[in-house]
Parts: sequence; C-alpha cells; structure tokens
Amino acid sequence: MKMKAGRILLLLLCLNVVTFGVIAVPQTCPASDLESGCSDSEEWKGEFFPGIPKIKYEGPSSKNPLSFKWYNAEEEILGKKMKDWLRFSVAFWHTFRGTGGDPFGAPTKNWPWEDGTNSVAMAKRRMRANFEFINKLGVDRWCFHDRDIAPDGETLEESNKNLDEVVALAKELQGSKIRPLWGTAQLFLHPRYMHGGATSPEVGVYAYAAAQVKKAIEVTHYLGGENYVFWGGREGYQSLLNTDMGRELDHLARFLEAAVAYKKKIGYNGTLLIEPKPQEPTKHQYDWDAATSANFLRKYGLIGEFKLNIECNHATLSGHSCHHELETARLNGLLGNIDANTGDPQTGWDTDQFLTDIAEATLVMLTVVKNGGIAPGGFNFDAKLRRESTDVEDLFIAHISGMDTLARGLRNVVKLIEDGSLDELVRKRYESFDTEIGAHIEAGKGDFEYLEKKAIEWGEPKVPSAKQELAEMLFQSVL
Amino acid sequence: MKMKAGRILLLLLCLNVVTFGVIAVPQTCPASDLESGCSDSEEWKGEFFPGIPKIKYEGPSSKNPLSFKWYNAEEEILGKKMKDWLRFSVAFWHTFRGTGGDPFGAPTKNWPWEDGTNSVAMAKRRMRANFEFINKLGVDRWCFHDRDIAPDGETLEESNKNLDEVVALAKELQGSKIRPLWGTAQLFLHPRYMHGGATSPEVGVYAYAAAQVKKAIEVTHYLGGENYVFWGGREGYQSLLNTDMGRELDHLARFLEAAVAYKKKIGYNGTLLIEPKPQEPTKHQYDWDAATSANFLRKYGLIGEFKLNIECNHATLSGHSCHHELETARLNGLLGNIDANTGDPQTGWDTDQFLTDIAEATLVMLTVVKNGGIAPGGFNFDAKLRRESTDVEDLFIAHISGMDTLARGLRNVVKLIEDGSLDELVRKRYESFDTEIGAHIEAGKGDFEYLEKKAIEWGEPKVPSAKQELAEMLFQSVL
Amino acid sequence: MKMKAGRILLLLLCLNVVTFGVIAVPQTCPASDLESGCSDSEEWKGEFFPGIPKIKYEGPSSKNPLSFKWYNAEEEILGKKMKDWLRFSVAFWHTFRGTGGDPFGAPTKNWPWEDGTNSVAMAKRRMRANFEFINKLGVDRWCFHDRDIAPDGETLEESNKNLDEVVALAKELQGSKIRPLWGTAQLFLHPRYMHGGATSPEVGVYAYAAAQVKKAIEVTHYLGGENYVFWGGREGYQSLLNTDMGRELDHLARFLEAAVAYKKKIGYNGTLLIEPKPQEPTKHQYDWDAATSANFLRKYGLIGEFKLNIECNHATLSGHSCHHELETARLNGLLGNIDANTGDPQTGWDTDQFLTDIAEATLVMLTVVKNGGIAPGGFNFDAKLRRESTDVEDLFIAHISGMDTLARGLRNVVKLIEDGSLDELVRKRYESFDTEIGAHIEAGKGDFEYLEKKAIEWGEPKVPSAKQELAEMLFQSVL
Amino acid sequence: MKMKAGRILLLLLCLNVVTFGVIAVPQTCPASDLESGCSDSEEWKGEFFPGIPKIKYEGPSSKNPLSFKWYNAEEEILGKKMKDWLRFSVAFWHTFRGTGGDPFGAPTKNWPWEDGTNSVAMAKRRMRANFEFINKLGVDRWCFHDRDIAPDGETLEESNKNLDEVVALAKELQGSKIRPLWGTAQLFLHPRYMHGGATSPEVGVYAYAAAQVKKAIEVTHYLGGENYVFWGGREGYQSLLNTDMGRELDHLARFLEAAVAYKKKIGYNGTLLIEPKPQEPTKHQYDWDAATSANFLRKYGLIGEFKLNIECNHATLSGHSCHHELETARLNGLLGNIDANTGDPQTGWDTDQFLTDIAEATLVMLTVVKNGGIAPGGFNFDAKLRRESTDVEDLFIAHISGMDTLARGLRNVVKLIEDGSLDELVRKRYESFDTEIGAHIEAGKGDFEYLEKKAIEWGEPKVPSAKQELAEMLFQSVL
Repeated sequence: MKMKAGRILLLLLCLNVVTFGVIAVPQTCPASDLESGCSDSEEWKGEFFPGIPKIKYEGPSSKNPLSFKWYNAEEEILGKKMKDWLRFSVAFWHTFRGTGGDPFGAPTKNWPWEDGTNSVAMAKRRMRANFEFINKLGVDRWCFHDRDIAPDGETLEESNKNLDEVVALAKELQGSKIRPLWGTAQLFLHPRYMHGGATSPEVGVYAYAAAQVKKAIEVTHYLGGENYVFWGGREGYQSLLNTDMGRELDHLARFLEAAVAYKKKIGYNGTLLIEPKPQEPTKHQYDWDAATSANFLRKYGLIGEFKLNIECNHATLSGHSCHHELETARLNGLLGNIDANTGDPQTGWDTDQFLTDIAEATLVMLTVVKNGGIAPGGFNFDAKLRRESTDVEDLFIAHISGMDTLARGLRNVVKLIEDGSLDELVRKRYESFDTEIGAHIEAGKGDFEYLEKKAIEWGEPKVPSAKQELAEMLFQSVL
Repeated sequence: MKMKAGRILLLLLCLNVVTFGVIAVPQTCPASDLESGCSDSEEWKGEFFPGIPKIKYEGPSSKNPLSFKWYNAEEEILGKKMKDWLRFSVAFWHTFRGTGGDPFGAPTKNWPWEDGTNSVAMAKRRMRANFEFINKLGVDRWCFHDRDIAPDGETLEESNKNLDEVVALAKELQGSKIRPLWGTAQLFLHPRYMHGGATSPEVGVYAYAAAQVKKAIEVTHYLGGENYVFWGGREGYQSLLNTDMGRELDHLARFLEAAVAYKKKIGYNGTLLIEPKPQEPTKHQYDWDAATSANFLRKYGLIGEFKLNIECNHATLSGHSCHHELETARLNGLLGNIDANTGDPQTGWDTDQFLTDIAEATLVMLTVVKNGGIAPGGFNFDAKLRRESTDVEDLFIAHISGMDTLARGLRNVVKLIEDGSLDELVRKRYESFDTEIGAHIEAGKGDFEYLEKKAIEWGEPKVPSAKQELAEMLFQSVL
Repeated sequence: MKMKAGRILLLLLCLNVVTFGVIAVPQTCPASDLESGCSDSEEWKGEFFPGIPKIKYEGPSSKNPLSFKWYNAEEEILGKKMKDWLRFSVAFWHTFRGTGGDPFGAPTKNWPWEDGTNSVAMAKRRMRANFEFINKLGVDRWCFHDRDIAPDGETLEESNKNLDEVVALAKELQGSKIRPLWGTAQLFLHPRYMHGGATSPEVGVYAYAAAQVKKAIEVTHYLGGENYVFWGGREGYQSLLNTDMGRELDHLARFLEAAVAYKKKIGYNGTLLIEPKPQEPTKHQYDWDAATSANFLRKYGLIGEFKLNIECNHATLSGHSCHHELETARLNGLLGNIDANTGDPQTGWDTDQFLTDIAEATLVMLTVVKNGGIAPGGFNFDAKLRRESTDVEDLFIAHISGMDTLARGLRNVVKLIEDGSLDELVRKRYESFDTEIGAHIEAGKGDFEYLEKKAIEWGEPKVPSAKQELAEMLFQSVL
Repeated sequence: MKMKAGRILLLLLCLNVVTFGVIAVPQTCPASDLESGCSDSEEWKGEFFPGIPKIKYEGPSSKNPLSFKWYNAEEEILGKKMKDWLRFSVAFWHTFRGTGGDPFGAPTKNWPWEDGTNSVAMAKRRMRANFEFINKLGVDRWCFHDRDIAPDGETLEESNKNLDEVVALAKELQGSKIRPLWGTAQLFLHPRYMHGGATSPEVGVYAYAAAQVKKAIEVTHYLGGENYVFWGGREGYQSLLNTDMGRELDHLARFLEAAVAYKKKIGYNGTLLIEPKPQEPTKHQYDWDAATSANFLRKYGLIGEFKLNIECNHATLSGHSCHHELETARLNGLLGNIDANTGDPQTGWDTDQFLTDIAEATLVMLTVVKNGGIAPGGFNFDAKLRRESTDVEDLFIAHISGMDTLARGLRNVVKLIEDGSLDELVRKRYESFDTEIGAHIEAGKGDFEYLEKKAIEWGEPKVPSAKQELAEMLFQSVL
C-alpha cells in the first residue's frame, strides 16, 4: 500500500461527493456546428450559450423570460444612467464554479463546457464562457477569487503561474469596457486554512495567506479591479475553549495593516473592503456585522483604510434587516459595495438566493440613492442557482430576475421621492430639533443643568403618534 | 472534446472540492510491522489504530482521555446493565466516511487506511477499520447507509452486487455479538434524488428509490439489524411555488406503505423508524418534527407500523428542546431510537456535535428510563468530529466523551429517583386530579353543565406556586 | 394594615403599569357639538370618530390615506364579490382594548371615549364605538373574547350577568348585517389561568374554564357567530421539569370533547377552531403549529370536529412561512379561518402587525382561492397598532392598509390564474405521474418488487431542472 | 363626561390588566405577632419574611433549599474571598416590583407587604422589605431604577421629592456595609419615552430624560453606588421607514457626553456602564451587543468614559454565547459588570431566568478570573421569578440557586486552573507564534514581501488538529 501521496489526497478529497460511482451522462456539445465536433482545445471559441441571445429591455409587459422588464441600462434615472446606479457584477464562483453540491448532496450541474478536469486549459475555456455570459447579459463587471479562476498548483509558485496564465486571458477578454468590480483571495476552501488564514494559530499558514493575498491584490490591480475584498470565512472560531480570541484578533489587524501597506506600495488605488458575516462556516466570524467590523477597524486604527461589502443574506443571518446593515455602513462612512442576494427568512444558513423581493429591493436602493450611489462599488450577484436548477438558461433567468428586481427598486425610489410624503413624515417627526434649542443641543451645548431647567419650565412633553402604519402605507403605494 | 461521459461526471463531481491541486502528504502506514510495508491487499488485517488500546472504565478521577470515567458497560443500574440501557452504536458515515468537507471547505481528514479510491476493495478495508474501532470502543452496534459501505456501480444491479460483497464481509466481521442498530438507504446524496426520492416529481426516481430501499431492507435483515430508518433529507421542498405538496405527501405515504408490505413479506421483524428533521438541505422537510411525523402517520393509517428516531440536534433546529421531542415521541407511543448528538445553540444548521452537556444528557436519560429503556432501539452517535479535528485519536476521544456524558446522565437519573423530591413536587402539583371528581373528569364524564355547577359551588379556585425555581434547584443538585 | 382583600388586589394589579403617577391629559370630547358637553351617560350616542367619513374605494391612484385603493367590496372577482372572498373582521381586543402597554412600557393610547373605568357602562359605550368603527370601515364581522367586551364580576354569576348585558346591546347594534366571525373565551389573562385552563393542574381551574367556555359558546351562538375559537395561550408549559405533559394533554382532549358535546346539545352549528401558536407566553404551547394540532386532533378522535385558525405571525414564529401553514391546514382539510397579520422577520415574539407585504398577501390569497374560499371562516385582523401610534385615525389607516393589501393579493391571484404560466410549470413537473404507471402507484399498487423491476428496466432516470428562479420570476411579474 | 384628566389616565392605565374585576384574596399578614394585627403605618418594622432564617452555607450535601450548597461568602478562593469575586447584587425591580404580568397576563404576585398603592409610604415599606431580604440572603449590594423605588409625582419636582424621601430611608437602612452596585434611571416605562429618551424625536423628551438622569446620578452618588447604568430600552427604532437613525445616534452621543460632564462636575467617580441588548421592546436597540456598543463609543470619542454591563440573556438574544460577549467586552477593555441571568435557548425574547447551567456559569467565571475580578462591578441578578412562582420563599430559592450556580462555576474554574490541561492545550495551539518570526509579525513587522518569501521557503504548512473534542472533555471533567 505504498501509494503516491499526491494521488491519495487528490482522490481522497473526492470521496465525500463520489460515493456513488459513475453514471451515464448524455454527452452535450455546445458548439453550434455539430458536424465538426466539440473542440478539445483550450482555444475553443464556439458559442457557449448558443440558444441565448443578447438580453434586451422589453418593458414590464413582456412575457419573455429572457428579457429585461425593468432594467434599461442606458435609461436616465435621477440624473444617472441605470447602469451607473446599479453597476452590476457577475460572481465567477457561483456562476461558473457552483456545482450544486451541498452538505448532503453531490454536484448537480452538468455545464456542457466542463470537461471534468481542473486544468489550466479548462480554466481558460471557462473564462471564455464567463465573458460570453457577461456580454450577453449586458453587464460590465465581474468578481472572482484567485482559486476560482485558476487551479492550485503543487507549490505556491506554480499556483501563481497558473493564475498569471488565466489572468492574461481574462485581461484580453475584458477588452476596454469590462473590469473586475473586485477580486479576492480564497482563504477558506483549502484544508490549510481550516483554522483561519490571518487568524490561524500556525505562523506558516499566516505567511501563506499573506503571500496569497499579495498575489491576489497584484492581479486585481493588473485587471483594473476597482475594489479588493476580504471575506474572513475562516477568521473566527468554532469554540472559545480552544481559542485565544485576543491574539487572533491582533493577528488579523497586523495582517490587514500589511495589506494596506502593500497596496500603497504598489500604487494600487482600489478600495479595500471587509465583508461582514456572522457565522457559517465558523460558529463566530470576527467580522460579525457592520458595527462589529467598524469597531474592529476603529480599535486597530484601520478605519480610514477600509470600507464594507454588505451582503443582504449575511445581514439577516446576523439578526438585522438588509436595510439596517446598509444604513449602519452608510452612517459609519463605510458603505463600499453590496452583495446583492437574499436568504430564506425561515432558514438559519446562507442560501445566497437572487433577490426577488420588491420591497427589500426598494429599501436597498433607497440607501444607495441617499449615499449618492456606491461607485467605485457596485452590486455583485453573490447569489447562486438552487441546487435543483440545472438548465443553462436558469443562469440567465436568475440574473435577469435579480437585475430587474433592483431596477424596479430604483424606479420605486423615484416614485417615493416624487411623492415626497414619506420624507415629509420623517422630517416632521424631528422638527422640534430644527429649533434654536435643538441646534444648541446638537452642537453639544445642552448640559444637564440647562436641560433640567428646560424640562421643569416646559412641564410634561407632548409626544405625537409615530405614524408607522401611515409610513408603511405610503411605502407600499410605490411598490 | 468527445469525452467519455463517465469520466466527465466522475471528475466534474470533484470540482467543488478539488480546486487547489495536489498537496504533499506524508505517507502514513498504520500497520504495526513497518518493515513489511502496508499491504495493498483488501485482505489486509493489520491494526488500523495501532496506538489505541481497548478502552476501559477507569472511573471519574482518571485523567486518561482514552478511558471511560462514567460508562462502565457491565455495571448494573436500575436493574439493567449500563450497556443495556444505552445500547450505543457507531455511525459508519460520520466516523468512516466523514471527510471534514463543509459548504465552504474541502475535506480535511487523512485517515491512514484510505487509499483515495472508492473501490470495493477500499470499502472492505474500511469495514475492517470499522470493526476494529467498534471493538476497541467496546460497543456492540453500528449504523449504516447502503452507499456509505459500498460504492455505487454503473447500474443498480452493479450497485447491489457491490453492496452484497461488502455486506458479506461485514456479516463475517460482526461475529456473534455485534449487530446493526439500524440500516438505511442513502436517498439524498446522488443528484438523481435532488427533488426527493419518494417525493420526486419523476416517477423513475420514485421507482429507483423503492428499489434501493428494498435492497437496503434486505441487507439490514440479513445482518440482523434491529431497526430500519427513513431519513427524508430530500423529501420536502425548496419553494412552494413549484411544488405540489399534497401530491408529494400522498406519494410518500404510498412509498412507506409499500415498505411496510415488503418488510412483512420477507419476514423482517425490525422496527421501521422515521427520523424527523425540520429543514436542511430542504427549506421544509415533510417529517419536520415528532408531532408532524405523527400526524402524517395517523393521517395515512401508518401509525402502528412506524416509530421515530429522535435526534437532539434536529429537535433544537425545529425550535424544541431535545427533551421535548423525546417526550412527545414517548407520549405518542413512538419513541424508537435516539440519534445522540447536539447542536450549537447559536447556529441555525445541523452541527452534529457529540453531546457533552450533562444536564441535557440527564433529561434524555430521564425519558429513556420512563420509557423502560428503548430497546430494540438504542443510541446512535449521529455525530461527527469538528472539521478541524484531524487526529485518528480524536475519533476515540469524541466517542468516549459522548458515551461518558450519557452514562453520567444515567447515573444522575438514579440520584434523581433516589432523592425523589422532584417526582414528589410534580405529583403534588396534580393531586387535585387524584380525587373522585378528577377521576370523573379524566374518564370523560365531566360535561360542561356539571363543571359549571362545580365552578359556581367552589368559587374562585386557589392556584399554588409552580415552584419552577425549586424544581431547577433539585434537578441541578444531582448533576 | 387590615385592608380589604378586593381593594388590595385591584390596586396591586395596577402596580406594574402605574409607577409613574398621574399626568395631565388634555380633555378630549369626541362629540361634534362641543357646546352641549360630552354626555356621561352610557347611552351616549354621539359620534366617536367625528372626523372620519365612511371609507370608500377610490382606486390605486388615490393619495387619500382614508380611502381604499384596492379593496372594492362589491366588485366581482373570480365569481365572487371581494367582500365574500375576504370576509374581513375587526378584532375587538386589539382595536378597543389594546392599550399600547408592552413588557417594558405602560399604556400609551388615550382614546377619547374611555373614562378610565372598567364598568359595564364603559363596556357598552365602547361597544358603540366598535360598531361605528365597523360601519365606517365597511366591514360585516367582528371577533371578541368574553372578557374584552364585558368586565369580570366578583363571581362567575356576576361576570355572566355583565356579559349578558353587553351582549344584548351588541345584538341590537349588530342589526341585520353584522355578525361575529367568531367569539372566544379569554383563558389567559386572569391569574387563575397562570398554569393553564384546560391543562391547569388544579381541577377547580379546569371547571372554571369549562364554565367560562360554556357561556362564551352560548353567547357566540346568540349573536349569530359563525365560528368559535380556542387559543390555548396558557395551555402548554414553561418547564418540563415540573410538568406532567401526558396528563395535561389528556385533560385538554377531555375538555375539547366536552365542548363538542355541549355545542351539539344546544344546537350550535358554528365551526370550532383551534388556533396554533408555538410559544409565548408559554415556552411550549400544545397547539404548536398546524401539523401538531392536527396530530392532537387525530390522536384523540377529534379530527372531524375542529378546524384551524391560522395566524401568519404564529406561522413564522414556528419556523414556517404563512403560506406553508395555510397549505398544511388546507391539505389536512382543516383550513377554517385566517388571522390576518404579520410579524417582523427579525424578532422572536408576536408583533401582530398589519400585513403590508404584497407577495405574502398574494400567497395567502392563492391558498384561499385553491380552497374555494374560507367561508364560514374569514380574515380576522388579529393585528394591533404599534405602541407608538396613538392617533385615532391610525386605527383606520392600519385597517385600510391591511384590507387593501389582501385585496391587492386577491387581484394578483387573478393575474396569476389568467397568465397560467406558473400553474403550467408545476403541472409539467409532475407529468410523469400523469401516466398509467403513475396512476398505478398513486392507487397504492406500486409494490417494491414491481418498482424494482421498473427501475432496472428504465436505467438511470432523467431529472429535469426545478426551474425555481423561473417560478419566482413568474410570480413576481404579477405583483 | 367631564372627568378629571388625572383620574382618567390613572385608571385607563390599569385597563389592560384589570379586565377581570375583583377577586377574593385571603388576607395575609406577615408580622409574627398576629394578635396585634398588621400595622398600617409606613414605619412598620415587623418581619417581612418571618419564616425565612438568615441563609447559611451548609455544603453540597445539604438538602435544605434555604441554604447555600456552594456559596461560602468568606471562603478564600484564588486569593480572594468568594464574596469579593462575586459581589452579588439584588435587583430591586424584579424582586420587589415584579408583578408576574406578561403581555398576555395580569399580575400574579400577592406579596403580603403590598397594600395595593403606589404611595411614598408603600415605597418606604417596600424598601424595608428589600433590606431584610438582602440581609437574610447575605448580600452587600443592590441595584435600582429611580422610578422603582419611589413613585412618579405630578411634576418632575414632585417626583424628585418622592425620590429624595425614599432614598433618605435607603441610605439609613444601608448602614455601613450595603451599597448600590449601581443605580439607573427608568427611561422606558412612561409613555413619554415611547419614542426613546435621548433618541426621542421630541426635544422636550430629550430634556426630560436628561433631567431624570441628572437626578438619578446624584442619588446613586449619594448612596455610594459604585456604578451607574444606561440601558437604552427605547433608544432604537421600530421601523426604519419613519426614523432618522443618524440623527438619533448623534443625539444619543450628545446625551452621554453631557452625562460624563455632569458626573465629573459633581465629583462622582462611579463607572458609567452601557448595557447592550439587541432588541425588545424595540425592533433594533442602538446598543445591540458589546461590539456595536464599543463601535458607538469609539466613533463618538467616548471609549474611555464607559464600560459595559453584559447580560447573558441579552447575549444569546443577539446570537452570541454569554461567554463570547464577556470575552468581547474584556478584550475591548470594557468589562464593567455582569447581569447574571439566562434565557431559554428556544425562545426569542428576554426571559430573565436565574442562571442554573453549571457549564455556562463556569465559562462566565473563567472570564471574570482572567479579568482579575470585575470590581467595582459585580453580579446583579437581573432575573425574575417565573410568573407562576408565587410563594415568598420562591424569591429566596431563586436567588440561592443563582448564587450557588455562580459559586459552583468559580469552584470549577479553580479545578480547571489546577488541572492546567486546557490552558496547555491552548498554549500549544499558538506556540508557532512564540518564536522569533512570530514576535516579528506580532510587532507589526511582517510585511507581505517578507511573508511571501517565508511561505515559499517553508512550503506547504503543517496544520495540526484543533482538538476541540478533547478540550470539551477536559472542560466537562471539572463540572
């Protein structure tokens, strides 16, 4: 039983999904010219989505699933084109590496362009599919993890080489219009990161993570990525019993400081973003929610160097509405990007569904408009097909649905602003502070003795209705 | 690109875990005789756990992690041996097929006996490891899914043949003492079951599931398994929008009726068990909790044919305490088996941890003692190592800890019974019903006119304290 | 300190809310003719809502908060008038006895018609306000607890006398058009019920509860109430340690059997309804959710005698969507009534808000239409103003908003049916069962040997996409 | 109907609880000399708890519910007396103003010393009961809200006068040994605070709140209180639709700045504490959890002026373990005080139960010991009897149980420290950082280029097992 170590692990890693042997799958071939056969070459340039046209805006009355009903990229709304408010991005990992596997189930997706390998050639073919998808969808941005787009090698150097090769192709395919909304390093899948990357108790892992982030920043910079994201999926703990939380948090701060320094050193001006999530896969992730992340940044003097990437599903998992997290980020000056998805209100894990709730989309867009837009951030579809959705066209339907929902939200915000009633309701609630005394207090001059004198002078204050039901009625009327 | 379909899928299935290439792993060889090398043969009979002795009872003062402090198999407690109260079982899938993979991470376990294949030979070697583990742990029972113990073949017939081959070995290794606590069919991992097995909208899948369950019942019968379990991990829905719930529930009933009929036809007397779980992987699993499962069984006239397998982690995911679910099963006459694990109180998914909470273990054992034991059911450790626990000895430590915790619970129940105060507190709360009038009412003779007359005659009733804090104090005093 | 017991308790009961003394409140007088002063007499027939007109349908473009935008009572939809689909009911307790108090706060509502007493005279004035409200809102039904509408007396007889007096007035005010949707007995507020009513360990409380329910059924019958509801707010437990759950459940069954017998004896034909709720105020309420309640009814042979009153906020507290609970009730033949409200998706207690979510309202109405309507049940607004909403007009705004939302839901269902695409998507998913073999299986003739033969004959089944994203897109298109 | 406004509101406020009239209550008289009758005078100095002796330590084998089994105040543990580690405090509000009312139920407690009024005389009698309770329990500290201990007056001045009168008595009864652990102002019960105190949109309410806090700080100072607490029960929102969150947070900061200034001005040296809670009664409370509160303090430059009062039940409501919140506070230098209670793991609201979980108590004490104690903070029993616990002795049993549980936790920490294995396990996990390179990194000198060089030099890092199951076993062994 003297097996080669490499082979052992490679195969071992498949065991959890491949316990059911080999199944007959009808061969699919996406190229339109069937006579010539599917090319085995990485250079294969056939159409990946032969039945899918470029998606067009057809308006709300269209019954065509492969059309936009609400998103009209070039239409001007509130002084900007829709595409400039929304800055949509396709997430490479969900769309092109999502397999449909879940903790109880094997992969379900059989995309016709996949050959079953994790080779560089396959990575390049997949990248071509990505750009065809992006172009047909009419989107200008994409997001990626380093290890999604190019395979791990035997060594760090080899991994970097693989990455460079695929990135060169991506650069070419991007052309002049398409850019990454952001890039990031995958520091959670590989077993070496099982205890964390920046917060691993192993110094060797810390160094490895640093090297990987270094490269990922370089690559994002090279591709013209406007932001760089840190999602600390493994930066947290499973149990406090075996964890030195204080030391781990210090390490995380050191790591991020080094990232800031490196970014500046190489002249990269993209925004660094932290993506809060409360838990899963960890029991506790250090970047629990927007406020927790802000506290961390302030404590370690990093507050000016980072913004936040708020994800709606992460918001609800942390016990907040998505709107709350967005507003918290905005009020802390930290709203950097939005991972546009949603969760199931009755499940306790990240379902990463495409957002289709019109009311929620309207609230999301309300914050974005208040913020004057979120550029250089945007809306990344960190959302995936359900495991049971296995048609190629489902990829398009899901994205169209998500784009239309946010576009509809933006249109509703316009109606809300034009109507003005809700704004007015809020303004009036606070008007007792729009006075000389209010200004005095807001300027920090309302000491307790002064206030006590006023309280006695005024007697029992009048407290009007909060009119929440009216506010809800006004809000619903624009949906 | 005319690849062989089989190869495509095999590799495709690995994609989600193998995106990081190949890592150097130091070769391990478990056999004690290193000179002779590890045998490549499936017949290899070397020791799998060479450093681990047979686990012994050493009492509460022992500091040896590889000893029992509370579980003393042959010790008599409340008229039975501890092993007869507890009837522990090792779950093959967690212990021997658990890879440490999670939705965000690749496998982490590198068990030395694994060769990286999913061959029948590997399956047989793994089975030998299982029995060495069971024997060293001092347990008499094990549980399995069909596809855990033997690989899927290209066809159903081939899968059955593989299963037969491994089962024959298991039968031999069981000897005269060891038996399955239960067997079951894995109807959730394979993509064909993505919409359900018995509740799949595809009639072909329904038939396939039936064939698989038929074989799994036969095999369980052959091995002397005392129970057969149905966990409907995919029998539920992700969205009501695309689901005909009524039709699916009817199909499920038809399926279970057929299982009952087949069991009787072949003369199998084991108990059929349904394992409730509220959700995950589905948004809603039809066997949500004990009461929901009981309602289903009653509605379809199956109530006498099934019992329930209650899992503590599933209980808490459904919003109940484990104790509540056990009591609900007991009061419905349905307490059949216990999946002994626990969840994290702050996470919304199934963590399948080994139970180490003494108070919870005491409550679990309280129900078991009230039930007069749970034979032919037992305690199956449906619990897994944390992803980050990667030493072979961790497998033993975890099981010892779980066994000791339940044994400690049983010992606490003895103290509770001997003390008697808590029982007395409860008895006294209800003593107003231990009267002639109480008996009259409990016999169904207390009509409203009679009761109104009594209410007027008695005037305002006296309502004593519920003494919950005293009950908690009495309970804690035995921990 | 020899105080009179009565006075002691009366005042003691106020302590939790009146710890802040007495505040100057500007006197309000609702009568339009201010010169003549507000009459102190219970016979006072002035207008209670002088500024509020009869609410009219003005269509979606109206900006008038005191008008319907979607609910047009007499408009015919799918073969019935909107009012016959919706059968709206005002909940007396929330609308006329809701004080705005919460576990941390004192009452906030200062309705002008309240005189601060709990007298029969006040009860009668309040009843007049109720009917003015109902008439102005254009609703034909109302719901009540016995103790909401008339004060407790010193004895049961006196309480019944009070109730009779107020009920006589209600009967008169109802006229020929208005009827109770349902009545019920309040078995949770009074301290005598702290351990439960039917499940109290005290036999005297059991009898008292029976006497109270007897009277409440009589009164509901007298008023022409179409249903009678059991909400077991205290029928459950706070701790299993001091509870004999089996005995309590048996008592509950005896109690409900007696209720059925009494209803039949007096010739009352209204539907008896059980209202599931998982918890709050108890840790566990025996009628946890629809399936749990159904199991209880089946176990005790009561399944033909009761239906369920499904409340949306209770549904979500039990971990289900409202749509799921409605469908579960429907499929068990138990859909009797709907408590139309909603909760906050991020809070763990019953907020009883007016439903304003259009998507949820559409799903609710989808089940109602599938059920062919819910008469003799209806939609009871078991919903309350936020504590901070203190204007009289807020009562109207909230109800209008709730009515419009459900009306909008009904209109969306029409669009869904007319479009037909979603129905077709579902039909196609199951069409493999619309075959001879499918029928064979559904008829209970698909035994395991037959199915195995089919499975082998068919080989690996094809499993199409579930098209969930398309289903969501189709659903959203009608909102 | 020209009623006096005062009377109207007073009575109106009772309406939600007194809907059931007047019940015969057997007169109770706590004085031991029954012949002489209970004195009606406020000066009544009879025994309030005549059957209850001074509670003594009797050791773990005692069966006496009115004795300590684990808490031995003067016993020295880890260099301090138990009473100095634990610094227990009785919460006046739960123990003496808790009525047993809940959102669905009227008060249930009939304490014999209550006369049913909210008079100053009653307030003083109650204060005497408080000190008898404290003395019999053997505790040196108590906590209070201003409005708990003295009734609201018609005006602020009158309220302050009432407060002064009761405080003077409390000062006398405190003697030389007893002091408030902390005082606070009740800014949540009165309807004027329904939209918040410091965050109310009404400037008059802001001023009123300031005046009330000013007085409460003065009174706490006068009584020798070691801390002053801010619990912002209404400082948050019910809906973002009608809320200007940014402006409210600014107001809150202004308010706290003024509190700091005033404290310093009057020479009060007590610690100011913020008590985080995620929600209830609000949908979102601005002091959501420890990290959120820390972020707020840092953002507004208040970080050096406040510490946190961590409550276990609030911790779990926010999705954290109590241990996590305590550690987060400790690591931010903010651990000021502990509200020692617990919640039910399956309910979504604050149950404020006495902590009886031994494992949790051990973790709590672990943090306290790591922190070197928490003086001048302590353990306040922000915990209440269950509504159904209505005996006077239940007050003692509950507190004894809570005190014993924490004492048992402290004793377990000693065992954990003496054993040393768990500490060693943690130390070893991080030892790769106890190296020259580790120190280099921790000193902030590990830049990305340096780390990349190391990563390449080292190759694939070795990642050992996290040994969580062993850690759990070691932890359980001391329970």
